[in-house]
Amino acid sequence: MKITLDSPLDMHLHLREGDLLSITVPCSSLHFSGGVVMPNLIDPVTSLDYLLNYRRAIEFYCQNTAFQPYMTLFFSAYPADVLRQAREHIVGIKLYPAGVTTQSENGVTDFDGIEPTLAVMEELGIPLLVHGETGGFVLDREKAFLATYRRFAETFPDLHIVMEHITTADSIDLLNRYENLSATVTLHHLMITLDDVIGGLMNPHLFCKPVAKTPRDRDALREAVLSGHPRIMFGSDSAPHPVDKKECSGCAAGIFSAPVALLLLTELFERADRLDVLQGFVSDIARTRYGLKPPMKQVTLHTKPFRVPERYGSVRPYYGGSEIGWSVAEIR
Amino acid sequence: MKITLDSPLDMHLHLREGDLLSITVPCSSLHFSGGVVMPNLIDPVTSLDYLLNYRRAIEFYCQNTAFQPYMTLFFSAYPADVLRQAREHIVGIKLYPAGVTTQSENGVTDFDGIEPTLAVMEELGIPLLVHGETGGFVLDREKAFLATYRRFAETFPDLHIVMEHITTADSIDLLNRYENLSATVTLHHLMITLDDVIGGLMNPHLFCKPVAKTPRDRDALREAVLSGHPRIMFGSDSAPHPVDKKECSGCAAGIFSAPVALLLLTELFERADRLDVLQGFVSDIARTRYGLKPPMKQVTLHTKPFRVPERYGSVRPYYGGSEIGWSVAEIR
Repeated sequence: MKITLDSPLDMHLHLREGDLLSITVPCSSLHFSGGVVMPNLIDPVTSLDYLLNYRRAIEFYCQNTAFQPYMTLFFSAYPADVLRQAREHIVGIKLYPAGVTTQSENGVTDFDGIEPTLAVMEELGIPLLVHGETGGFVLDREKAFLATYRRFAETFPDLHIVMEHITTADSIDLLNRYENLSATVTLHHLMITLDDVIGGLMNPHLFCKPVAKTPRDRDALREAVLSGHPRIMFGSDSAPHPVDKKECSGCAAGIFSAPVALLLLTELFERADRLDVLQGFVSDIARTRYGLKPPMKQVTLHTKPFRVPERYGSVRPYYGGSEIGWSVAEIR
Repeated sequence: MKITLDSPLDMHLHLREGDLLSITVPCSSLHFSGGVVMPNLIDPVTSLDYLLNYRRAIEFYCQNTAFQPYMTLFFSAYPADVLRQAREHIVGIKLYPAGVTTQSENGVTDFDGIEPTLAVMEELGIPLLVHGETGGFVLDREKAFLATYRRFAETFPDLHIVMEHITTADSIDLLNRYENLSATVTLHHLMITLDDVIGGLMNPHLFCKPVAKTPRDRDALREAVLSGHPRIMFGSDSAPHPVDKKECSGCAAGIFSAPVALLLLTELFERADRLDVLQGFVSDIARTRYGLKPPMKQVTLHTKPFRVPERYGSVRPYYGGSEIGWSVAEIR
């Protein structure tokens, strides 16, 4: 069996910085034609200069590959002129509530105070990408944030708001209620539940934020994605951490899925007999919702098994050492 | 401030076997006058000979300390004569549903089929100690087992059934409904929630089975214990794993709390201004419920801080490297 995907896009991607770029960029640019690059670096990306430098660092590792890094600023209450100037260089601004995930210490604490900035973004057509969690009990954080999504969606009806890496049935319900909401869903949240993380032995390599939830939640995500939901896009949230930051006493959150994402998605959609909606999930819906014209890249996959390497540099990938039923046959 | 505790008892204890005994036995026998020793060794303790050998191995490391290892058999559908013979050597039989925790592969799968054995245990006055979890979603396993507790409690009204290491508000509710139910509660389930395990960085040293639950559950446990619930006993579930089995890709479940349990319990009860019910929780209730006469050991604690060692051999203890406000002043 074969399938060809046109310009696959990863709408939520952590490329990190420094040496890690030499691992992350080649892995993503091989199978994807573009990716939305998250701005939560050690120093968050909060200026246009910094953003352009970061993009150049990423492009250095792309070299001859057609790969568009879609850049984002780390949300802050930017003045209107900064937003106007940044507009042509970014696909959106990523909002982190303070302290909810890796390197989000400088995130938002005052959600009332940011409304003027959101109003300008709405006017300029800059999408708002949101890590939608609060600081409460770990399994309730996403649900507790839904009221904020609702308020934003109603107050700014022309603002494109992306609910990033949603993990619960409740989030799907809210998404369905507002046309200006989109969502990204990761590969791993379609695959695993909390049982895989702490149900048997504890597996730090499946530990991510938001944490994987219940079987019911996973099934709701699958159902929405596999039915071709018109506002759900693929975003891997691929996030590399060296093995010594995973297998230790305080394990970092994040799953490095970029090298295997397209293969496992194809396998998942095939098993559900829904390969017909895969192109939409991994590219077309994102193009429509964001108005993107990604570089041309045709990726043909076939049912030839692929054994995933145990390591990419110091990083253990998702499915490391395991076999996937699909592999890439050709990239044009 | 000072408090003297008479013959503290740890009613749920993993001493393990082999070299680990040289760490576990001295740690428990220092502060406790006795402990209920769990039988889930690599080969489960299913014969009287094995049990007596195991007890001798434990006693070897007790040496001059007054410490009574209260032995348990690993539940199996024992014939009546085996139970009659074992009776004087054990305080109970520990039932594990198959596959729910460390070394429980040989546990029970057929809960109907074991009723004849339970009937004999009831007749002989042998307590049934239960790891009350099913094989479902990790956070629902304890709740899903409650129906089995209810059935046992109603079918065998004279059988003393101990709900081991309960972690949820629902379990407290059930406990309150049947006089023949007792429960043990660990130190760590009084202290932590799932937030401490996976809410920030992931902490394998706080990973245990049953996993820590919600703040509401923790508060329900605290309220029951600190109000002097007449059928809840302290059981540490202290379970040592070498650091390399904790900080790895598949981390073992268990918290080694024996060296600090009595200190932290005293601190917890003092902060809640309920030192008056500590003696009951750590000894008197167990003596009443089990009919025990433990060796005399008076442990006096005072408010002099104690810094917990980082390691006991290859094992990292609970609170390793941290300071506790209470320490032992005298043991007689």
